[in-house]
Amino acid sequence: MEYRIEHDTMGEVKVPADKFWGAQTERSRNNFKIGPEASMPKEIIYAFAYLKKAAAMANTDLGVLPAEKRDLIAQACDEILAGKLDDQFPLVIWQTGSGTQSNMNANEVIAYRAHVNNGGSLLDAKKILHPNDDVNKSQSSNDTFPTAMHIAAYKQVVEITLPGLELLKDTLAKKSEEFKDIVKTGRTHFMDATPLTLGQEFSGYVQQITNGIRAIKNSLEMIAELALGGTAVGTGLNTPNGYDILVAKYIAELTGLPFVTAPNKFEALAAHDAIVELSGALKRVAVSLMKIANDIRMLSSGPRCGIGEIIIPDNEPGSSIMPGKVNPTQPEALTMVAAQVIGNDVAVSVGGTNGHFELNVFKPVMAANVLQSARLIGDACVSFNDHCAAGIEANLPVITQHLENSLMLVTALNPHVGYENAAKIAKKAHKENKTLKAAAVELGLLTEDQFDQWVKPGDMVGSLK
Amino acid sequence: MEYRIEHDTMGEVKVPADKFWGAQTERSRNNFKIGPEASMPKEIIYAFAYLKKAAAMANTDLGVLPAEKRDLIAQACDEILAGKLDDQFPLVIWQTGSGTQSNMNANEVIAYRAHVNNGGSLLDAKKILHPNDDVNKSQSSNDTFPTAMHIAAYKQVVEITLPGLELLKDTLAKKSEEFKDIVKTGRTHFMDATPLTLGQEFSGYVQQITNGIRAIKNSLEMIAELALGGTAVGTGLNTPNGYDILVAKYIAELTGLPFVTAPNKFEALAAHDAIVELSGALKRVAVSLMKIANDIRMLSSGPRCGIGEIIIPDNEPGSSIMPGKVNPTQPEALTMVAAQVIGNDVAVSVGGTNGHFELNVFKPVMAANVLQSARLIGDACVSFNDHCAAGIEANLPVITQHLENSLMLVTALNPHVGYENAAKIAKKAHKENKTLKAAAVELGLLTEDQFDQWVKPGDMVGSLK
Amino acid sequence: MEYRIEHDTMGEVKVPADKFWGAQTERSRNNFKIGPEASMPKEIIYAFAYLKKAAAMANTDLGVLPAEKRDLIAQACDEILAGKLDDQFPLVIWQTGSGTQSNMNANEVIAYRAHVNNGGSLLDAKKILHPNDDVNKSQSSNDTFPTAMHIAAYKQVVEITLPGLELLKDTLAKKSEEFKDIVKTGRTHFMDATPLTLGQEFSGYVQQITNGIRAIKNSLEMIAELALGGTAVGTGLNTPNGYDILVAKYIAELTGLPFVTAPNKFEALAAHDAIVELSGALKRVAVSLMKIANDIRMLSSGPRCGIGEIIIPDNEPGSSIMPGKVNPTQPEALTMVAAQVIGNDVAVSVGGTNGHFELNVFKPVMAANVLQSARLIGDACVSFNDHCAAGIEANLPVITQHLENSLMLVTALNPHVGYENAAKIAKKAHKENKTLKAAAVELGLLTEDQFDQWVKPGDMVGSLK
Amino acid sequence: MEYRIEHDTMGEVKVPADKFWGAQTERSRNNFKIGPEASMPKEIIYAFAYLKKAAAMANTDLGVLPAEKRDLIAQACDEILAGKLDDQFPLVIWQTGSGTQSNMNANEVIAYRAHVNNGGSLLDAKKILHPNDDVNKSQSSNDTFPTAMHIAAYKQVVEITLPGLELLKDTLAKKSEEFKDIVKTGRTHFMDATPLTLGQEFSGYVQQITNGIRAIKNSLEMIAELALGGTAVGTGLNTPNGYDILVAKYIAELTGLPFVTAPNKFEALAAHDAIVELSGALKRVAVSLMKIANDIRMLSSGPRCGIGEIIIPDNEPGSSIMPGKVNPTQPEALTMVAAQVIGNDVAVSVGGTNGHFELNVFKPVMAANVLQSARLIGDACVSFNDHCAAGIEANLPVITQHLENSLMLVTALNPHVGYENAAKIAKKAHKENKTLKAAAVELGLLTEDQFDQWVKPGDMVGSLK
Repeated sequence: MEYRIEHDTMGEVKVPADKFWGAQTERSRNNFKIGPEASMPKEIIYAFAYLKKAAAMANTDLGVLPAEKRDLIAQACDEILAGKLDDQFPLVIWQTGSGTQSNMNANEVIAYRAHVNNGGSLLDAKKILHPNDDVNKSQSSNDTFPTAMHIAAYKQVVEITLPGLELLKDTLAKKSEEFKDIVKTGRTHFMDATPLTLGQEFSGYVQQITNGIRAIKNSLEMIAELALGGTAVGTGLNTPNGYDILVAKYIAELTGLPFVTAPNKFEALAAHDAIVELSGALKRVAVSLMKIANDIRMLSSGPRCGIGEIIIPDNEPGSSIMPGKVNPTQPEALTMVAAQVIGNDVAVSVGGTNGHFELNVFKPVMAANVLQSARLIGDACVSFNDHCAAGIEANLPVITQHLENSLMLVTALNPHVGYENAAKIAKKAHKENKTLKAAAVELGLLTEDQFDQWVKPGDMVGSLK
Repeated sequence: MEYRIEHDTMGEVKVPADKFWGAQTERSRNNFKIGPEASMPKEIIYAFAYLKKAAAMANTDLGVLPAEKRDLIAQACDEILAGKLDDQFPLVIWQTGSGTQSNMNANEVIAYRAHVNNGGSLLDAKKILHPNDDVNKSQSSNDTFPTAMHIAAYKQVVEITLPGLELLKDTLAKKSEEFKDIVKTGRTHFMDATPLTLGQEFSGYVQQITNGIRAIKNSLEMIAELALGGTAVGTGLNTPNGYDILVAKYIAELTGLPFVTAPNKFEALAAHDAIVELSGALKRVAVSLMKIANDIRMLSSGPRCGIGEIIIPDNEPGSSIMPGKVNPTQPEALTMVAAQVIGNDVAVSVGGTNGHFELNVFKPVMAANVLQSARLIGDACVSFNDHCAAGIEANLPVITQHLENSLMLVTALNPHVGYENAAKIAKKAHKENKTLKAAAVELGLLTEDQFDQWVKPGDMVGSLK
Repeated sequence: MEYRIEHDTMGEVKVPADKFWGAQTERSRNNFKIGPEASMPKEIIYAFAYLKKAAAMANTDLGVLPAEKRDLIAQACDEILAGKLDDQFPLVIWQTGSGTQSNMNANEVIAYRAHVNNGGSLLDAKKILHPNDDVNKSQSSNDTFPTAMHIAAYKQVVEITLPGLELLKDTLAKKSEEFKDIVKTGRTHFMDATPLTLGQEFSGYVQQITNGIRAIKNSLEMIAELALGGTAVGTGLNTPNGYDILVAKYIAELTGLPFVTAPNKFEALAAHDAIVELSGALKRVAVSLMKIANDIRMLSSGPRCGIGEIIIPDNEPGSSIMPGKVNPTQPEALTMVAAQVIGNDVAVSVGGTNGHFELNVFKPVMAANVLQSARLIGDACVSFNDHCAAGIEANLPVITQHLENSLMLVTALNPHVGYENAAKIAKKAHKENKTLKAAAVELGLLTEDQFDQWVKPGDMVGSLK
Repeated sequence: MEYRIEHDTMGEVKVPADKFWGAQTERSRNNFKIGPEASMPKEIIYAFAYLKKAAAMANTDLGVLPAEKRDLIAQACDEILAGKLDDQFPLVIWQTGSGTQSNMNANEVIAYRAHVNNGGSLLDAKKILHPNDDVNKSQSSNDTFPTAMHIAAYKQVVEITLPGLELLKDTLAKKSEEFKDIVKTGRTHFMDATPLTLGQEFSGYVQQITNGIRAIKNSLEMIAELALGGTAVGTGLNTPNGYDILVAKYIAELTGLPFVTAPNKFEALAAHDAIVELSGALKRVAVSLMKIANDIRMLSSGPRCGIGEIIIPDNEPGSSIMPGKVNPTQPEALTMVAAQVIGNDVAVSVGGTNGHFELNVFKPVMAANVLQSARLIGDACVSFNDHCAAGIEANLPVITQHLENSLMLVTALNPHVGYENAAKIAKKAHKENKTLKAAAVELGLLTEDQFDQWVKPGDMVGSLK
């Protein structure tokens, strides 16, 4: 491979001749060969592009950066955002815990790409922009990386997570409405219980997702707060007056999202509780999705020896050995995602506890986990929605058969014969494998007519319908 | 031991003669010998007392329970709340996952205690109140237990958790103000960094707790929603019209807390995402507290070979072998609590994922963990506040010595000599064990006067002060 | 309450007049009001009694403690082990992270109780034994507390955890043998699959527990290593020659367990990876138990609308509203225990990561969690065994009906007609609600005779029977 | 893009014309767009190549597969192992929980690639090998995927994890030896404590890693057991006699690793406790590494305001704003890896708890997490070793200064003046900012000569040196 020589404050480094990155990126690439290359989430890279552009705009407005330099920076950032420089970010998550090297990767690529855009050559000893003095002006890794985390996380959540959840919620709501008159046996403790409608069952799922969306939105409030302007330790050293507010305003404009400057920069650098909170909200949703997906696959179990009250779409052959087998693969993918999100949340918590003094240095691992969680939930909801939920149908014959057999209809007799007599009826029916009516009449506790009048499954689902 | 005979729908059971509980409590006591006796949190017991009283009131209002029965129930409930019947609740967390047996424990104790209060004897075959037909009227374990969970959790949080956090926040805010002019060296990556004030450092802690309180309050919104009225599977079977709203209103009155009936009872029985969410908020706070407590103990480390920039109160001899040793014991207790809360949150999540169909049957374990987390955080904050935070003092001689030595003051020179020259100065000073000023002047990059004018630690903390 | 005055190196303290503890215990009691009183596990207290006695024996042997003092110490330790001094240990888990105060609690109670045993009075200014100089001789909190952790954990595991697991394993093995000829439908993805015997299904559970026991035993190897003799930082300062080996030998003798001195005391104080490892092994077992318990409750689901292939004992009325309902309460308790153990493991891990330099100061929280996990698993296995597993019966009519209906018997045709044709048969049977045989013959892929010859469920379970 | 038509039992599917995969892979690719494409770990793909080759060899030996088909299968497998077909495996982790589709991906690619290798065309309607009937012969997804998990995990651990740990252990052992005579102050509770040698401190790290390696090796015992031969539900349906043992033998030969057939195939399909156990062992190691890495960065903190007792290599500029700053970046990467592994362990546990009946359908997520953990630990140890541990140097001037100042040397006086007098000396020295000697003499507790004779730091580290 061909190389050129770049340098930083520690000396010279050989860099691949055709890459825009510089000495510090190359050092990191060589010093951190941990896991697959380029694992730093691309969402973070793009967030840096927004941030560097906004910083340049603010710097120029505040008189500390010439307008030409601003424009060169902005042009390179736009190229990053257009996906044209994706191969210029080779660094991994497992680097310095402040993400300094990814900040420098952005600084170097922007500076050197801008130099080339400006007609220069990568071989020029001096470039038109300096990675630190220009691109990183009024910034530090310590405030840029958390800002990039927040930009990336907010975008991921509003672009992927929430739309996925909304889509699934709407489908489930539609199903709840569609199934509103289908009375079926309830199940508690996995055992037969009093009836409800299939629509009511689904309404619980809708409520779960509704509440989960609310929790995620609550947590976004904190994600909207940006550390930028705090620089090295939160004091804003080497930033012009009014910079923090202005740069947040520019980021808000560029992204179309309601970012503001954080009220306390010391907290924003030293702790990433906002990320912990968002991860917790995503975990809460994962818990809900695991419940919903489990219900769907259990309700659709069978086809002959299970519960089988609903039918889900057949999307693929289910088994490489059992012909004709169809499996609830979408619920499985969704529950696996839920397991991952629950695990990721612990990684985020462990990272969150380990901030010391003015800086938390578990930034990249916290960012990577929360971004993965946000992405997986959103994607998995869409997949589950399109390939499973939207196609769910009630299996009426099975539902009817179960309902008619259920001994728990006896509960309707409580107000008429009391709990203990009702229990006697149910036990006798179970033991002697009879209908409830037969058992009740044999026990002399009521007449057939009374039974028919008192035990109407359709009336048992009503009070909170 | 002397026994009397009680019975339930399964037959007769020998019960300790002097206890108010009945057959089902006794069955559970014998069937679940797991861990120490009576581990079901007493907060849950008391919550049951509120809800049984409220249910009786609503039942009477709605014409399904005679007023005399209501009053007998209310009287027994008041005795529970007064702590007079604490020894009547012997059951453990590790019972049926719906908490049915603790619901029945409450039903039985209330019914039989009321019978005695009414002049009857425990030996009477028939008591004035029936545990199921009267005390449990318009209720099921499936809606009472989650209601008790919410009542207990809400109370715990507003009575213990939030006051503890507020107390600590106020103390730290006072300290932040007290220390606002003490300039000290910052630390990032555990390494020397640019200066900030000790007050700024503490302001980050204040912000962390402020945000944590906000997160907990957000989650309380969902805890305020009560399942009561959903009965067995969420349909409200065997409840009178308007019961769910009325009973929530009575619970709100009795507790003085803003409880309302849950908008969807199916969700409220089948999922405990609200508890998952609260646990997540407590975990977020635990993460914050771990950071704060670690900082305090690291800042106070020494006395001779550590960082030693603050002094914390000496509360006890620190070592059984090293005479005169004093340790940061309160931060240690607080960080251990944080570890517990993080673990509890995982237990809650695992429980939360395992709801099936119309019921989540991990209720007691979820309740116990979230109640413990809420209690430990509140108690530990008070302890840490009273015995540590309130007595923190700045160790000015050490702070001054560190600040004067710090090489990172060089950062103030960036705007004047550029990042690379500034790096040369710092490196030279470090290597040759010199002051920054000497190194800078030797390198010919500035004059002594310029150095004195440009490098003023007090000016480096200002822009976001 | 009446008080007497005790003192320590920090001054005088008022101590309840009738308690044997002294100044440092009292300080801790007042300084750490976090959670319920006396939460420090009693297993740790008893472990201290073994340890203090063994230390006294070694000290006397090695000539640093008079024999009379040894005997007085031993006598008080024996009283602790007999449970006579349980009310003398009021401290909580949430104290100093080294457990220093619980070590001092033991030192003080032993010293002062011995003084009284020796005919002295608690009011005497000078007691026959000094808590530090005599009872704590050749010890430090830093090596005694981890030693107590190991003693307590090893005992808990061999006395409670392993017997519980062995009991359950044996029962399940018996059931596996009992059910070895009952052919039933298998289920994968919760969907019908090829048949196996109920005995085979249970044999998987037996293997899980067998492997889990093996994992726990592997982890005990490290728990057998004791830190005692390392004193303050692992160097063994102030201990006589040969002390560490001798004291471990005495502890082994007193407990009847294979304790040895740790090969590296620095590791034994600064890290508690052995506890992390044990907790991980317990978590592994919890994961297994959750699977087993879930299977049992799902297999027993119904009675009319579930899977219903096994019948489990009815132990209590299952519902306070649904008469005659019976629930799988023992599996529920067991799965709740599993959730707790999984959460506890995270608390232990977080504690384990936080050792710094010569000491890990998350000792009490790590100890409490691993002891609870060990206890709960053992107790829950016994409860589940006695009240559920031992009474499991096959529900033959349901098993037979399911087996005969299962479409997955078609898999036996793969070698004869190929996977794709077999799939056609299954799909046709499913779609047209026919038997496999009818579908196969209609498709012209085989004759009735061939079907009968090729599809024999009893032959499909055989090769690994 | 150009397509060709493939079909499976569900009908026709358009597949990219130039890809070797078939209908089922393509269905999965379209049905599971969750997260980045091709996320299924390549280690799993390669493991499938070993197992498909071994299965073909066993099938031929046992007379159920012609030798020519075996050879074609083997050839294609060898191409996979040579990395030539990496772009033929586009599927994601988040698919069916049995990994069926990745098994089919392997079956299809092998079958169709073999067809082309045999001179056929992808457009031929019938290929020389059938994915199910030939490549998957005597197999099911349900036994192949767990087998692939074990092969991949075992290889990852012995090729990456253990070598990384061994390398780091050896370096730390060398350092321990190198530093064996450097007496320094100990620290407990982050506070000054009695002295030890720097070599002793490092010996604790060596012991931690030694124990961790042992734990991982213990867990490998279970990973060596292969499910292959169990087919669909563990019964071995459609496998020839002796197949399970033979195929394990071939896998052992091909990989050079001690694989054997699992003693109970029901457990091996329905539970992945072996993976849970391995993950737990990796987590235990992560906990150790977090402790070690934290110590290294805290010991190297400074350069002027920290502990600074060791010097670690400067690998890159540490800050984009603070010139000359050097940070402990390798410890940070290692601790981030540890956080990830701890989180991954929870994801694995959650997956592990969710097996039902004859199959655990969280296989891909469990595999992906344990493989990532194994890889990250190994890689991060090498990185930390090469760029940090190997270059650690003692900072003697700082160590000496700290040691001489430490008040905890007073502990050496315990045997001479008693704990309480020693405490008085330490407290006086601390309060009056004096040396211990001065304080001791002023208190009249000893002479200068006695002090010099009794307090020799070098003698305080000895008994367990």
